[in-house]
Amino acid sequence: MLGQMMTKPLLISSLIEHAARYHGDTPIVSVNTTGGGVEHTNWASVAMNARKLGSVLNQIGLDPQDRVATIAWNNRRHLEIYYGVSGAGFVCHTINPRLFPEQLVYIVNHAEDKVLFIEETFLPLAVNLRDQMPTLEHIVMMGPRNEKLAAEHDWLEFYDDFIAPGDMHFTWPEFDELTASSLCYTSGTTGHPKGVLYSHRSTMLHSFSTNSRDVIGYSAADVVMPVVPMFHVNAWGAPYGCAMSGSAMVMPGPDLHGEALVKLIDNHGVTCAMGVPTIWLGLLAYAKKSGSRLESLERTVIGGSACPPSMITEFRELYGVDTIHAWGMTELSPLGSANHPLAKHHSLPPEEQQRLRENQGRPPFGIDLKIVDDDYHDLPMDGVLQGDLLVQGHWVLDSYFRMEDTEILHDGWFATGDVSTLDPNGYMTIRDRSKDIIKSGGEWISSVELENIAVGHPKLANAAVIGVEHPKWDERPVLIAVAAEGETPTAEELLAYYDGKIAKWQIPDTVIFADALPLNATGKVLKRTLREQYGKVLIEAAS
Amino acid sequence: MLGQMMTKPLLISSLIEHAARYHGDTPIVSVNTTGGGVEHTNWASVAMNARKLGSVLNQIGLDPQDRVATIAWNNRRHLEIYYGVSGAGFVCHTINPRLFPEQLVYIVNHAEDKVLFIEETFLPLAVNLRDQMPTLEHIVMMGPRNEKLAAEHDWLEFYDDFIAPGDMHFTWPEFDELTASSLCYTSGTTGHPKGVLYSHRSTMLHSFSTNSRDVIGYSAADVVMPVVPMFHVNAWGAPYGCAMSGSAMVMPGPDLHGEALVKLIDNHGVTCAMGVPTIWLGLLAYAKKSGSRLESLERTVIGGSACPPSMITEFRELYGVDTIHAWGMTELSPLGSANHPLAKHHSLPPEEQQRLRENQGRPPFGIDLKIVDDDYHDLPMDGVLQGDLLVQGHWVLDSYFRMEDTEILHDGWFATGDVSTLDPNGYMTIRDRSKDIIKSGGEWISSVELENIAVGHPKLANAAVIGVEHPKWDERPVLIAVAAEGETPTAEELLAYYDGKIAKWQIPDTVIFADALPLNATGKVLKRTLREQYGKVLIEAAS
Ligand SMILES: Nc1ncnc2c1ncn2[C@@H]1O[C@H](COP(=O)(O)O)[C@@H](O)[C@H]1O
Repeated sequence: MLGQMMTKPLLISSLIEHAARYHGDTPIVSVNTTGGGVEHTNWASVAMNARKLGSVLNQIGLDPQDRVATIAWNNRRHLEIYYGVSGAGFVCHTINPRLFPEQLVYIVNHAEDKVLFIEETFLPLAVNLRDQMPTLEHIVMMGPRNEKLAAEHDWLEFYDDFIAPGDMHFTWPEFDELTASSLCYTSGTTGHPKGVLYSHRSTMLHSFSTNSRDVIGYSAADVVMPVVPMFHVNAWGAPYGCAMSGSAMVMPGPDLHGEALVKLIDNHGVTCAMGVPTIWLGLLAYAKKSGSRLESLERTVIGGSACPPSMITEFRELYGVDTIHAWGMTELSPLGSANHPLAKHHSLPPEEQQRLRENQGRPPFGIDLKIVDDDYHDLPMDGVLQGDLLVQGHWVLDSYFRMEDTEILHDGWFATGDVSTLDPNGYMTIRDRSKDIIKSGGEWISSVELENIAVGHPKLANAAVIGVEHPKWDERPVLIAVAAEGETPTAEELLAYYDGKIAKWQIPDTVIFADALPLNATGKVLKRTLREQYGKVLIEAAS
Repeated sequence: MLGQMMTKPLLISSLIEHAARYHGDTPIVSVNTTGGGVEHTNWASVAMNARKLGSVLNQIGLDPQDRVATIAWNNRRHLEIYYGVSGAGFVCHTINPRLFPEQLVYIVNHAEDKVLFIEETFLPLAVNLRDQMPTLEHIVMMGPRNEKLAAEHDWLEFYDDFIAPGDMHFTWPEFDELTASSLCYTSGTTGHPKGVLYSHRSTMLHSFSTNSRDVIGYSAADVVMPVVPMFHVNAWGAPYGCAMSGSAMVMPGPDLHGEALVKLIDNHGVTCAMGVPTIWLGLLAYAKKSGSRLESLERTVIGGSACPPSMITEFRELYGVDTIHAWGMTELSPLGSANHPLAKHHSLPPEEQQRLRENQGRPPFGIDLKIVDDDYHDLPMDGVLQGDLLVQGHWVLDSYFRMEDTEILHDGWFATGDVSTLDPNGYMTIRDRSKDIIKSGGEWISSVELENIAVGHPKLANAAVIGVEHPKWDERPVLIAVAAEGETPTAEELLAYYDGKIAKWQIPDTVIFADALPLNATGKVLKRTLREQYGKVLIEAAS
């Protein structure tokens, strides 16, 4: 016997219609791609343009779930494309502009994108690679018509012209909520990038989750600035969550340096911002230099890689900003855990409460986490034993796009590639990526832990720790250090800095100084490259 | 093309398993039904007993979606029954103990309940009515075995014995998320009570919504006390929302007087409590008398009938408690709107901000509201025009239980029977129940507005306003006043109290003093009874 309740599919179009109807006048500030300056719009106008775009995509004869790609910054047009494409039943495929050209070409061809929306900044990319992307029927620059560019490239279309013939009263189609809505490729460190194909349902349930108080808890009283790019797992779901809650938004555009971000926060009263740790390093440095108090800012969501404890302290003590340390993956839409306290924590001493806020947090309803040993046997949630982290839930992938036949789940669980501990309340500490953890004499050493300590050293700008081959211990940790401007730290003082902070046998064997660390397209350190370069230094030293 | 994400049904059993796994040690304080005192349990233990109960309900041979009824207070056994029954695929049918016996018998027979769980308090009811409820196969008293009662009633079973043979590792069945999960009858003022049959999906989406920051926003840092009864629309969804977020709970049992509630708040650190305005009147009176500062309390959710503005002020100014004024109905699971500010409100003067917090709030994502005229034509959302309030959404009923053939929707919208205004952001002000609004000389007068003013008079304990027949104006308002203890207000001073607060022509024509107001089973004033009694007073006075 079924319940007797209204049933409507959970569709992304209903988010933008909710925002338009009840929060139509709520401001959205959007930084222009070129020429500087901001544009002021609101949810009603974003919805109107999304409807126009949706109707145009139908007019040009796309088939249901055809892929429409973007190579774009965080701005209002990108927001309109998110809703126009998915709402009208097509798949919004966001592409990371920092990918190598050959990866980008691979992705567009693999996805068979029909339309590409691209910022003026990336036009040279389109010009160079167009011949290699035969599925593309339209390449649309995200801006008003530009006569000079139009004359140079007869194939180029312009967003404002493109949507002009659209119907602003377009009615969104209704379809199965399991329908594909959007697509994001993970850059990965080996092999081709792999696509994660989200559904309307998974996206909607993820949005409900992000809006709960113990995840991000967007509110209509918030002014939200997603610093994390919309090409990186849908800006952690902010475009959806904010429409659901009717939050005001500040879309920061291309310049994510500390100065630009601090000014946006101060000028537009940002209350909540999300991004990776490196972004916040720049922001905190500029805030200190400029004397900004980050007055309006209430909370920052930090994830993508481990948030150094010193960052949490700085935000809290200098600016009264609460930090939500979160963990996620492209394969998880992306949110898998967030750090918020429990009722029982209130009675602990303040230092203890602070310490508990440092790890990656606990899973919200809808996500399950467990850790297993090499044979996929469950390990206890005791906060001490570490194992491979597996995940299951309403917004976790089932298989990669167009790789349906490659079974990637183990008994229904997805192996994240992270090595973690889980405490009895499900608080997770990421110890390492499984391929980065250092196996020394049968014991495991967390490279993340060693890096977190090193970046706390005042003379260092950045640091990475890798496991390198060792004749006796199999592997030993080596610190790759990037000195802060004007500093010349010695290896001795860096290694001495570990004293008393970790067990003696975990201290790196040696230090290698580098000018910079190699980064992948999402800004993460390419440890594989470091291992290729330095993996033999201890062997060579010994021989 | 479908997305490639994991898809699992949204089932109520997954809530309790989430709470057990990540919040197992989170305390649940439960007030005993008889003998006073509290019991301390936690989510792990509630989950264990729910599994045992679920397995026993299978063992006794119930068929899928058979109805299992409760006549019970808010306590941990009731919580276990909620999860055990719905989780195992049966329908949890909560019955209001304050119904007239004939209504109660009607409901049990209409639902064909197979099992009835009942508190010791209500045992006499079961003894008297048992013969008239032939579908009941088991009547189970919610407590440990009681030899005396067992000897008196050989048909009586006891909860603790009943679940004892159950399997604490019982695996919840998986089924379609549209399956019926629970049932609640609305008492209504005419005709038989009508049942609303919730589904797992509607309940789960409602839970996600309640947990969003702009609705109630349950958190694992909260200690939540649902004062609203679990027999009244699932205690506004608290048992589900709190498991979803892992909140600690205080279940207040049978005594909902001010003294008992204040002590529970102070003893157990309650941070969030929900209930109807009359409950809070008692609580505020006792807090004042006892000098409690309600230290731990952060927010109260007030709904069920209009929250007088003076109550919001008292909570805020005397106790620093934020009030969330919410509106809902049995037919809406129940939440349809909640009052939270928008970003643009921050810059308004404080008095203006406060005034904006007084109405019933705006719909969260998942609910749509509109107002229409008598011909069901849409009226504008201008905050001024009032009309019949219609609602649509993921947790709104489609038809009443076993009345599938009676079409109750208008073009997909449910008519709430409320008369409201909607402002451009969807903030709703309930002006009246459509049958209670007073039509005087072609103009509408809100009885709610007149009552809100009257209850602010220090010499009144309670007040109701009804429209009574009038030879010239069709209807005119009349105030039915209940004096506060020891006070003897005059009609003149009560009517003078309206001066300057509303337009002259809206002031009631006369005052009738009564010892008490007639209430229905959910504690709402029975205006129909008042109209039957006093509907002719102005006609009689004129003749
Ligand atoms: N808060 C965090 N702490 C440590 N590592 C993280 C965190 N958030 C994300 N990651 C890492 O980033 C991976 C996902 O990368 P991506 O799919 O590119 O977002 C995860 O598997 C983790 O290894």
